[in-house]
Amino acid sequence: MSIKVVMLGAGYVTAHLATGLERLKKGLIEPYGIPLAKYALPYSLRDIEIVGVYDVDESKVGKTLYDVAKEVMGSEYPVPEELKTVIIRRGIRRKSTDGLDMRAKGLDDLMSYEDSLKTLLNEWLDLRPDVIVNVITTEYGEEYPDESVALGKILRGDVPATHSYAYVASMYAKIKGGVAFVNAIPTPVANNPGLLKLLEESGVVVFGDDGATGATPLTADLIEHLTERNRLIEFIVQFNIGGNTDFYALTRQDRNHMKELTKTSMIKDITGYEVPAFIKPTGYLEPLGDKKYVAMHIEYISFNGFRDSIYINARINDSPALAGILCDLIRLGKISLDRGWKGTIYEVNAFYMKKPGPQGAPNIAKNKAYELLLSKFGLK
Amino acid sequence: MSIKVVMLGAGYVTAHLATGLERLKKGLIEPYGIPLAKYALPYSLRDIEIVGVYDVDESKVGKTLYDVAKEVMGSEYPVPEELKTVIIRRGIRRKSTDGLDMRAKGLDDLMSYEDSLKTLLNEWLDLRPDVIVNVITTEYGEEYPDESVALGKILRGDVPATHSYAYVASMYAKIKGGVAFVNAIPTPVANNPGLLKLLEESGVVVFGDDGATGATPLTADLIEHLTERNRLIEFIVQFNIGGNTDFYALTRQDRNHMKELTKTSMIKDITGYEVPAFIKPTGYLEPLGDKKYVAMHIEYISFNGFRDSIYINARINDSPALAGILCDLIRLGKISLDRGWKGTIYEVNAFYMKKPGPQGAPNIAKNKAYELLLSKFGLK
Amino acid sequence: MSIKVVMLGAGYVTAHLATGLERLKKGLIEPYGIPLAKYALPYSLRDIEIVGVYDVDESKVGKTLYDVAKEVMGSEYPVPEELKTVIIRRGIRRKSTDGLDMRAKGLDDLMSYEDSLKTLLNEWLDLRPDVIVNVITTEYGEEYPDESVALGKILRGDVPATHSYAYVASMYAKIKGGVAFVNAIPTPVANNPGLLKLLEESGVVVFGDDGATGATPLTADLIEHLTERNRLIEFIVQFNIGGNTDFYALTRQDRNHMKELTKTSMIKDITGYEVPAFIKPTGYLEPLGDKKYVAMHIEYISFNGFRDSIYINARINDSPALAGILCDLIRLGKISLDRGWKGTIYEVNAFYMKKPGPQGAPNIAKNKAYELLLSKFGLK
Amino acid sequence: MSIKVVMLGAGYVTAHLATGLERLKKGLIEPYGIPLAKYALPYSLRDIEIVGVYDVDESKVGKTLYDVAKEVMGSEYPVPEELKTVIIRRGIRRKSTDGLDMRAKGLDDLMSYEDSLKTLLNEWLDLRPDVIVNVITTEYGEEYPDESVALGKILRGDVPATHSYAYVASMYAKIKGGVAFVNAIPTPVANNPGLLKLLEESGVVVFGDDGATGATPLTADLIEHLTERNRLIEFIVQFNIGGNTDFYALTRQDRNHMKELTKTSMIKDITGYEVPAFIKPTGYLEPLGDKKYVAMHIEYISFNGFRDSIYINARINDSPALAGILCDLIRLGKISLDRGWKGTIYEVNAFYMKKPGPQGAPNIAKNKAYELLLSKFGLK
Repeated sequence: MSIKVVMLGAGYVTAHLATGLERLKKGLIEPYGIPLAKYALPYSLRDIEIVGVYDVDESKVGKTLYDVAKEVMGSEYPVPEELKTVIIRRGIRRKSTDGLDMRAKGLDDLMSYEDSLKTLLNEWLDLRPDVIVNVITTEYGEEYPDESVALGKILRGDVPATHSYAYVASMYAKIKGGVAFVNAIPTPVANNPGLLKLLEESGVVVFGDDGATGATPLTADLIEHLTERNRLIEFIVQFNIGGNTDFYALTRQDRNHMKELTKTSMIKDITGYEVPAFIKPTGYLEPLGDKKYVAMHIEYISFNGFRDSIYINARINDSPALAGILCDLIRLGKISLDRGWKGTIYEVNAFYMKKPGPQGAPNIAKNKAYELLLSKFGLK
Repeated sequence: MSIKVVMLGAGYVTAHLATGLERLKKGLIEPYGIPLAKYALPYSLRDIEIVGVYDVDESKVGKTLYDVAKEVMGSEYPVPEELKTVIIRRGIRRKSTDGLDMRAKGLDDLMSYEDSLKTLLNEWLDLRPDVIVNVITTEYGEEYPDESVALGKILRGDVPATHSYAYVASMYAKIKGGVAFVNAIPTPVANNPGLLKLLEESGVVVFGDDGATGATPLTADLIEHLTERNRLIEFIVQFNIGGNTDFYALTRQDRNHMKELTKTSMIKDITGYEVPAFIKPTGYLEPLGDKKYVAMHIEYISFNGFRDSIYINARINDSPALAGILCDLIRLGKISLDRGWKGTIYEVNAFYMKKPGPQGAPNIAKNKAYELLLSKFGLK
Repeated sequence: MSIKVVMLGAGYVTAHLATGLERLKKGLIEPYGIPLAKYALPYSLRDIEIVGVYDVDESKVGKTLYDVAKEVMGSEYPVPEELKTVIIRRGIRRKSTDGLDMRAKGLDDLMSYEDSLKTLLNEWLDLRPDVIVNVITTEYGEEYPDESVALGKILRGDVPATHSYAYVASMYAKIKGGVAFVNAIPTPVANNPGLLKLLEESGVVVFGDDGATGATPLTADLIEHLTERNRLIEFIVQFNIGGNTDFYALTRQDRNHMKELTKTSMIKDITGYEVPAFIKPTGYLEPLGDKKYVAMHIEYISFNGFRDSIYINARINDSPALAGILCDLIRLGKISLDRGWKGTIYEVNAFYMKKPGPQGAPNIAKNKAYELLLSKFGLK
Repeated sequence: MSIKVVMLGAGYVTAHLATGLERLKKGLIEPYGIPLAKYALPYSLRDIEIVGVYDVDESKVGKTLYDVAKEVMGSEYPVPEELKTVIIRRGIRRKSTDGLDMRAKGLDDLMSYEDSLKTLLNEWLDLRPDVIVNVITTEYGEEYPDESVALGKILRGDVPATHSYAYVASMYAKIKGGVAFVNAIPTPVANNPGLLKLLEESGVVVFGDDGATGATPLTADLIEHLTERNRLIEFIVQFNIGGNTDFYALTRQDRNHMKELTKTSMIKDITGYEVPAFIKPTGYLEPLGDKKYVAMHIEYISFNGFRDSIYINARINDSPALAGILCDLIRLGKISLDRGWKGTIYEVNAFYMKKPGPQGAPNIAKNKAYELLLSKFGLK
């Protein structure tokens, strides 16, 4: 009763997910950082099996996941031998690597775009994944108002790689009978009306967008805390800087814009009023590696017009946090399929995502979302 | 349809409450810091009327609340003229001022203890308060296993002033037909089985103990946030220092102990496991005044065994925060009386108190408590 | 024996300088924030007299300094009446307001550029300043390799306003016999070989560039502290955000670049090795006003290969800090003239400036620079 | 040309010193954290040789330094094999372990106090140390006004172990012809007039008291930074908490008092005025281990009466920092002996110690002290 998973992107997150799952199976670590670990789900963490990993980075394609994980996590890190059996496959590139300093080649560089989609579909029909998880580097992407615009753009290839992958997932789902697509990056999928429709009608369960890790969920709960006390937030400043590829990519203006929209939309949803806010990925500094530095400052008005100040600084391992919630999302994806659901599920997105789909859905405090999640899956 | 309030203690909190309420009535400030301000309660903030204020500090007794507020808040602060009509009355002292550097005289210094209780009762029968709010300086106090022990100690006078006041409230309630007693300090009342029984049987509604302001409720919600993600908290350090009388008093070992118990009991209630924690009022430094400095450090284990760090620093006006929640507690006290309730109400305490009574009741996250509160009073 | 001062720029800094000097004269405040206040200089703070203020903002030109200060500092701030006697004069604009959201008109908009320079010269010959202080909004500016390039560019008008002002100062100095030019913004003057030569030969004393306030001097001393202990700095991150015009201007890429160069050059000068660093003005958020928020994170290697971490957060009033050091720079400018000095003086720049001229001069720790300064002026 | 060293105390610091020196010799680490590593001293780091280590903890005495270091630094830490040749010897106990939760036995428990001193002297005459370093757990100790009081108390045994050790050092110096005694803990030696006289006359070079690591030297330089800008410091709060034996010992009131005196005396020496300050070891929490958490808050008045705020949080490995400066102090001790010096040397103490002796010597900023140190030893 295993859950077969295809990972899109062979970076930090996939390395942590694969490594962590093996170490869990061996009892070397506890399931910390996996929100639902303490609940009895129909699937255990041992059931998760990574059957395929895709990337377009020439320094990764063809290597084993073991070798890639060694590079990502440092040569001293005890990467499990089991990862030697997974080979990184070549994925779709489109413009996903523009402006990044890497040698990259996608299937769509080696053959026609149309053939690359077919090739991918055939591979998946062979691998038979239950869940496809998208953790490629953040890329710019538009929302499509309806299904036909989505389909037109995708078939012309004028789309981010994420949307090509989602399209292949829809074709796969129609043949195989359903699949779950977990979009853990900001490129709009669950928040993309046209694309979501197309996926839903093909029987795809969609979770997205942008996995809620780092300071954003903490900020959400902090704002809820202040709002429950009716304190007037005068401003919020939140800086964050890291040294992984995702931060490097975000130094490109258009990619950064994706993140910024995600984060500031949240605050008003919780407070009910406009809060002056500066919240965005702020910089890239290589030696920080995957452990980002977050600085936050909030001032608010309390009773009798008095002003209080809060300063938060944090050092957070970015990818382990995301890998931890993927352990839930993969299992919830399979459970959703088992229950015959399709399309996106707000109760999942509201807790696990920074920009919970579908488009227009409110971004509530994470502690409230947690209660919704537990109810939806009968866990209380 | 006013709510008549007697305040025990003429310090910062009473000054802020009285000042803030008048400024609200005049439309000079918005009701920030009052959690339920945005909900339609049967009583508005304008209905709250302070009819009596008690203290034992010789530099305050006999003065107007206006004069005391001017001293507390600084001569430049625009204290409303309306406070000139309230005179500070002499209260019960017992050992409440031991070790504090003040010239104090209670009714019980001027007459027999028994007579002092009677005198107080007569004054209250004259003032006819609906709600009695205890904000005297934190004093050491024991819990009594049953009603007879409570009564015995109280009648002998071998108790903190808080317990004498609570006893007079019970006598007053029996004659007048109910009163609400809001215990905003750590000295156990709602968590005191014997005393609570005595109060409940006399028709007193009791809210307590220790108003949840400052860093404690924030810490509670932060721990809940981490717990919902199944992160293992390795330790919590929380320092706080202030320059008001309450911090001064807490430099006395026995008083500090009261606070410490309050705070560390909370963490295990939320996480379900023992967290190594150092949380207590840490020092007194006069120039900080009523604006305390809080420093907090948390380390936790995330997925795949990685360790994250959070540092929080805050500057928080202590007394306005407490005054703000008193605006709710006073109204909820009256509403509870109107509904015929008596004894303590966990749903109120869980949100507003650091050590929610009754004894043994769990200290849940504040965001969960908020939902309970709204349900109890039909506010969702 | 007064020191006559012309201020270029009628913003926060000029408002604070003028206000603070008057309040000092009246004994309303102590001379805090003025480094040399405790030393006996030949000129006292009372000797400083602002005789002219220039700006190009149509909402300021023609108004009194009193009115401008009221706007800048808030209507409740007690701006001294004496400021009513100073009228804001129209200055040179060039491209200094490009991209800023303001209605601006310079002398060079109303007449030919050549005439605007002459007009300004005539006004100064009338006002007879001893010291000219440049605090206009940061503008982009190049360095000129030699005097003839400088002169050529300036006469063509293809320069930032700062350089036009400096040129008029040089003409003024030749006629009047010397003047001091204090360049408190990053646009290169003291670090501009061609322009500096031109100024020096005309008898101008030059202090510059970019007044050392905010987090930069603190960072310098912190790095010196670590370097004296031979700790290896692994990285430095420093964010800062404010809500005044200068921060707004810095959201423009080219202006920001000016600041960035200033700050990162400093670190290697102190440590002797390249430190990975992210240090630049990071954002603009209007409600922060003139009080900026700074967040800094440093990690370093200590003995036996162990890693330590420092987090600094600060809330700093930007303009008062600069106004405070201007009180010294103005007096040191006059003293330098009295001593017959001309050109730039490294011992002054090293302590008071972020990018101490002349070009190529090292950026030493501020505590070392302080010793040099005291020696240069015989103050120990 | 080696420097023979006896260590008093076999805890974290000795473990780090011994481990770090061996790893340096093997080229496994760089000499970070050793202030004078970049200067050419007559002795290199390779010359330092630990010939004896003393403790009274029964779980350490008789074991090898290798075993003790393994326990202290964690079993995974690569402790060098060379440490197997050093056996922990039994030292003097007196009251040094009172209130600590350990099974301890000193020479003075096994024989008469007088004999224990003689035994120790004989061992040292055998080991022939050049430098004796005291890093035992902080213990309470008085200052003696003159030599005869010192001698009287010491011979009666009514002294902390530190003073007994210092006395044996004086006897040893008289026979051997000089020794250096480095007192890295707060118990007064260099600041102890009577004891210092006795040591000086016996030919002992004394460095002390209380090695300047952690937040204290940083605080000193920060205060100097503010003072050089004539900012008025309104208050300083500094908390610190750790999980090593020294922090545990400091939970005992009398030991904590030793530290507190050290730290607050420093501020006035630098500022020239009284600064309201709360600075002391604040707590003990076991899981923090040797890596302490420091939180600091400073508010000051800048120009024109404006108030700025600084918040510093740090995580600092306590013992490596001290071990790093011991690498200098040991070499400076030997150099001082070579030069024929005796008694205490302020220029060394001022930089390396929190409470620089002799008694009454000013506690200047560390960056100033650094210059004095370089001059004294001809290093500029």
